[in-house]
Amino acid sequence: MSLIVQKYGGSSVSNAAAIKRVAKRVAATQQQGHDVVVVVSAMGDTTDELLDLAGAITHEPSQRELDILLTAGERISMSLLAMAVANYGVQAQSFTGQQAGVITDAVYGRAQIIDVVPHRIRKALDAGNVAIVAGFQGVDPIANDVTTLGRGGSDTTAVAIAAGLGADVCEIYTDVDGVYTADPRIVPTAKKIERATYEEMLELAACGAKILALRSVEYGRRYGVPIHVRSSFSQSPGTYVSLSTQEDSVEAPIISGVAHDRSEAKITIVDVPDVPGTAADIFAAVAEVSANIDMIVQNVSAARPGLTDISFTLPEGDGKRTLSALRRIQGDVGFASFQYDDQIGKVSLVGAGMKSHPGVSARFFAALRDAGINVEMISTSEIRISVAVRADQLDDAVRAIHTAFDLDSHDGEATVYAGTGR
Amino acid sequence: MSLIVQKYGGSSVSNAAAIKRVAKRVAATQQQGHDVVVVVSAMGDTTDELLDLAGAITHEPSQRELDILLTAGERISMSLLAMAVANYGVQAQSFTGQQAGVITDAVYGRAQIIDVVPHRIRKALDAGNVAIVAGFQGVDPIANDVTTLGRGGSDTTAVAIAAGLGADVCEIYTDVDGVYTADPRIVPTAKKIERATYEEMLELAACGAKILALRSVEYGRRYGVPIHVRSSFSQSPGTYVSLSTQEDSVEAPIISGVAHDRSEAKITIVDVPDVPGTAADIFAAVAEVSANIDMIVQNVSAARPGLTDISFTLPEGDGKRTLSALRRIQGDVGFASFQYDDQIGKVSLVGAGMKSHPGVSARFFAALRDAGINVEMISTSEIRISVAVRADQLDDAVRAIHTAFDLDSHDGEATVYAGTGR
Repeated sequence: MSLIVQKYGGSSVSNAAAIKRVAKRVAATQQQGHDVVVVVSAMGDTTDELLDLAGAITHEPSQRELDILLTAGERISMSLLAMAVANYGVQAQSFTGQQAGVITDAVYGRAQIIDVVPHRIRKALDAGNVAIVAGFQGVDPIANDVTTLGRGGSDTTAVAIAAGLGADVCEIYTDVDGVYTADPRIVPTAKKIERATYEEMLELAACGAKILALRSVEYGRRYGVPIHVRSSFSQSPGTYVSLSTQEDSVEAPIISGVAHDRSEAKITIVDVPDVPGTAADIFAAVAEVSANIDMIVQNVSAARPGLTDISFTLPEGDGKRTLSALRRIQGDVGFASFQYDDQIGKVSLVGAGMKSHPGVSARFFAALRDAGINVEMISTSEIRISVAVRADQLDDAVRAIHTAFDLDSHDGEATVYAGTGR
Repeated sequence: MSLIVQKYGGSSVSNAAAIKRVAKRVAATQQQGHDVVVVVSAMGDTTDELLDLAGAITHEPSQRELDILLTAGERISMSLLAMAVANYGVQAQSFTGQQAGVITDAVYGRAQIIDVVPHRIRKALDAGNVAIVAGFQGVDPIANDVTTLGRGGSDTTAVAIAAGLGADVCEIYTDVDGVYTADPRIVPTAKKIERATYEEMLELAACGAKILALRSVEYGRRYGVPIHVRSSFSQSPGTYVSLSTQEDSVEAPIISGVAHDRSEAKITIVDVPDVPGTAADIFAAVAEVSANIDMIVQNVSAARPGLTDISFTLPEGDGKRTLSALRRIQGDVGFASFQYDDQIGKVSLVGAGMKSHPGVSARFFAALRDAGINVEMISTSEIRISVAVRADQLDDAVRAIHTAFDLDSHDGEATVYAGTGR
């Protein structure tokens, strides 16, 4: 008997019929002899509807009240799911984040889980119940107020509960059957990734793959929780995320996939005085407005001695207030001007194997060159290469790299991917 | 400065515009220098919609889960109202029943309030906030589970919170401007009752007046909380419920009003052996199925020595299972048959003054006789006379009694009602 945590998103519980289908799966898992904890999101568009209601009342809602409001959504889905599971002859009890012992800090709207104290969940399981837990929410124990974890919060709840209970696996159910080597809408020959390390999944999530929330992967890595991303519409296995991809590391794949992101913009600051401390001044001003800087490039120009250009990327949503910040410091720092460009895209190649395999970079840039794609910025980690390109060339870039690293699936091929020794 | 508890029902907060209107009134009350606690019901039909959702999942929902589900409704309305009040420049914080310290027993669906421990509310008030509290809900502190108080529960929450805080008044806002001497749809000349005692209001509520929930009046009486029933659409005073109607009791009215109830049915058990213990056997069986018996009449018939008929009234909803219970004991108790009659109506005359004024009964029955109405059952308390009549004569009975006790309003009359010395 193992202890399984299952997480179902809003689209899996969008109406009564969908809730019953999920309940059937949950009940069947328990009847196979497992202890089952289910983490559930709000039904369908409930969260957006509640946000609309708040928007009809005020444009500046109190964050505390907004969090109380939004947690109503999971309260509804969790109790309905508990009723539905009971209808299949399996005892079930639902628990709010607070009742489940999900302890967070006091940052309303994007609280971080500090600890999970799942006494009630354990007790419910020991009494033969399926425990149903509201995702996305916790409690700030100082004020005794409810908090929400922000977008993707239910994934994090599930992994945190799994860690707190020492679960054997945390299954994240979604409407696709796993994480793919690239977005199948761009690369129809993309393959499902069968196994990935936390690091690979972190890089994929950070670079734009939207299946699994970044913070849930971080939590899984910290506590060593195996995560299984799979479809709620089938029984076939999805993508398994764990410490190492396979026992036999010789067989481990070099590359796990190609991620892309259209949501960033590029700011270029022109003719910055090339003296110590100017970059620090600029990025201090940007940090003050809480902009999330991603790639940074600085080049000293031989043609203009003593001056340099600095470019960086950031989410488009952070653009406006970052430009205001730059305007404020322009006189003090003494740069000539700045430009804003939202027509860029980022493509990233991720793979734990690349750190021990030379030649990956060369193949990567050759593929882009052969496809006629100009690279504007480059950033790398041990297991990732990312570049910024023109937005209208992004899809071509994804396809070119996917093909160059032999990630395209072939008919009848049973092994989905394998190391190629490059 | 006084401490005012205000309760707004679902129809007062049915949409964003209605919530803003309530918020304006709340903010104005606080800006007049009062401490304000607001108890709020779920928006409009939210509770019924949640019940429908549960009905689409299962016909036998767990009561625990149903309570968790239903409490989502007030969570939504209370947080939206807090946002709306803040929009008028007044600090506001919302609290669930649990956060507000509403402690109940563990009877899901119709929990009783055991205690109110309003530390957080007091603290929020002291910090200059309007405190907004979810009605209809509390917490069972043993299991640490949420409970609901049943129909009319928000009225009870409001009065209980007012008692716990020692509030100066508990204002119950509704869509009519007070409690009337009779239902104005039946008696167009009915007058608003300006003042009533708890006892009178209890009898009126128990006899079918639907403005104020019975349990909230009981709670108010026990803790001496003045209750003011008034309209959320006007500033004029409504009906004030307190310990005594007026200081000068000579001026106090004898009669407060005429209530009616169409929701009861009558069961008559025919030819019951007239020996000790049969009535006890019958009502034990009825109690076992939790039927709420109201009036009981037993008559020994001279024509059938040793046999008697027993009739009683009960809510129509309790009829089916009561008949089943009677069928089960028929052989043991040895009665001949039983009849079910849902074509009855109950009319009640209520007034604290009647206990010290003789002649009220005589005038009551004379009025019914003059209107040609046959009385089927009678029950009385110190301050009430109730009779069961044919359902199709109920409206006539209400009007006849209302007129006989001079309750009809007259044009230009400033004093709404006064003692007449009858």
